[in-house]
Amino acid sequence: MAVYTDVSDEELSDFLTRYDIGALVSCKGIAEGVENSNFLLGTETGRFILTLYEKRVNEGDLPFFLGLMDHLADRGINCPQPVRDRDGEALGRLAGRPATIVSFLDGMWVKRPEVSHCGQVGEALARLHKAGEGFSIRRRNGLGPDGWPPLYAGSADRADEVLTGLGGEVETELAFLQSNWPKDLPEGVIHADLFPDNVFFLKGQLSGLIDFYFACNDFLVYDLAICLNAWCFEPDGAFNITKGRAMLSGYTSGRPLTDAEMDALPVLCRGAALRFLLTRLYDWLMTPPGALVRKKDPLEYYKKLRFHRTATTASAYGLELAGSGA
Amino acid sequence: MAVYTDVSDEELSDFLTRYDIGALVSCKGIAEGVENSNFLLGTETGRFILTLYEKRVNEGDLPFFLGLMDHLADRGINCPQPVRDRDGEALGRLAGRPATIVSFLDGMWVKRPEVSHCGQVGEALARLHKAGEGFSIRRRNGLGPDGWPPLYAGSADRADEVLTGLGGEVETELAFLQSNWPKDLPEGVIHADLFPDNVFFLKGQLSGLIDFYFACNDFLVYDLAICLNAWCFEPDGAFNITKGRAMLSGYTSGRPLTDAEMDALPVLCRGAALRFLLTRLYDWLMTPPGALVRKKDPLEYYKKLRFHRTATTASAYGLELAGSGA
Repeated sequence: MAVYTDVSDEELSDFLTRYDIGALVSCKGIAEGVENSNFLLGTETGRFILTLYEKRVNEGDLPFFLGLMDHLADRGINCPQPVRDRDGEALGRLAGRPATIVSFLDGMWVKRPEVSHCGQVGEALARLHKAGEGFSIRRRNGLGPDGWPPLYAGSADRADEVLTGLGGEVETELAFLQSNWPKDLPEGVIHADLFPDNVFFLKGQLSGLIDFYFACNDFLVYDLAICLNAWCFEPDGAFNITKGRAMLSGYTSGRPLTDAEMDALPVLCRGAALRFLLTRLYDWLMTPPGALVRKKDPLEYYKKLRFHRTATTASAYGLELAGSGA
Repeated sequence: MAVYTDVSDEELSDFLTRYDIGALVSCKGIAEGVENSNFLLGTETGRFILTLYEKRVNEGDLPFFLGLMDHLADRGINCPQPVRDRDGEALGRLAGRPATIVSFLDGMWVKRPEVSHCGQVGEALARLHKAGEGFSIRRRNGLGPDGWPPLYAGSADRADEVLTGLGGEVETELAFLQSNWPKDLPEGVIHADLFPDNVFFLKGQLSGLIDFYFACNDFLVYDLAICLNAWCFEPDGAFNITKGRAMLSGYTSGRPLTDAEMDALPVLCRGAALRFLLTRLYDWLMTPPGALVRKKDPLEYYKKLRFHRTATTASAYGLELAGSGA
């Protein structure tokens, strides 16, 4: 649950005088998102989202994130667009924090995704990957394989508080992934956090993508692995191959996978599961009891990781492999 | 911070089919309020607030609250208006809870009220008290003097954890107020919780009142005592008599006080301070550490109570008393 920063009336109205969006008529803190403080603004000209970037966001990355939203919107992706102030700046400061105003997107996220949603997310991800081509700023993935060992180091002593034996399993997995992580797959800009709460639908049709604050340059198919993890498992922990097939078929209809990408999918899914297991484990152990945040269960991703270990080819996810028969 | 209840997509869309407000195009949980779950809905026809009543609200009181908002809106008070479904019902059920949709009010609350705001709140409170005349449902004030001893009983053992000696002071005050609480003052419908976050302003002008979920029948001037406590103290704990004078003058311009009401003001202010001290003390001691609520400091109201003990007449609050000279 967000809204970490209180903004005084004076600060907010001073900030808004820099923009040509009309006078403020309403302002509500939004109880979603866990990284930043978000406010829904109503002004005389429309609705906007005001975001204050909290400490987890590196200020140096903001030109990447804001530039990317502009780049994608110019190429037909329906995503929030940064509003520029009268000096042409998209990034300001409010209440001692970097702050931006972006356009408001209609649409709602689905809490229980169905097969049709998964198919549309696959298609949208392929469109996103193509639209990201030509974006000139680069950002490395700080939560990629090189980032996992130091991230795990912060929780290693206490991993077994969550589940006996978890520490040992994570270490084995880290070693496996260091040795088996693919090289030379097609790269580009990935969203890296395209969970259901970041995808909007209107009347069953995908209408927009939000929250580009984990976006970075990495293997494109790693983004697909993140989405398979986030969208295609049932609440009981079982992988739903019908959803997986819909997502993969949606993706490949827009951007066919190379053989190397198909071969790498099981390992990338393991890596994607471990990445969210590690950040959730860290947050689980480190979040003080009184914090205004709902903690996410790291073991959900541990179960997903165990499933991926049983997958030997991309057909485990529903991909139709050449020569695999009908 | 609110939003306690998760609503599934299916439940929400089923619920909305009962209303004539157009299809849903956005839904955001609002991070304000501490009693209920609130969502800002955007539909094809406008904006609305969806409220799910959590356990603190007695379901039997809802016809009073909803009927009151209708009654007040009919008499020109700008407050949220319950939207009726096709069967004419303002109260429905969603996610196992009583639920209503009300109209959305533009406007923002002021975090640091100035003299002008206090004056306008006084005027609005008098208008509210007059508009409440003729409302046919009654609701007793469960947080009035009879409610304080049982409320305190829940925290008595642990009051001194908050401040050494607090328990003894509360007991002395309870005894004083039981003996000195006024009788036979003018009664009517009071808001009973008109804090700054429940009053909206637009361009410096008071534009609306919200959150009628503590409203009840009680002495009208007790509502004014609650507002003096909520609006006219500075962050450092000092009473600002200029603000008090503005509020009292705003109120009496719409509804003059009787002599008995003026005489009773210091005692009513003590009672109002004790009432919020007691509920905050209870919440402070009873809220589990992991709860998604920001606890409010009970000692803020202890300090206010101590100030009121020094007040012998209503002139301590800025009221110009007959014969008190210029």
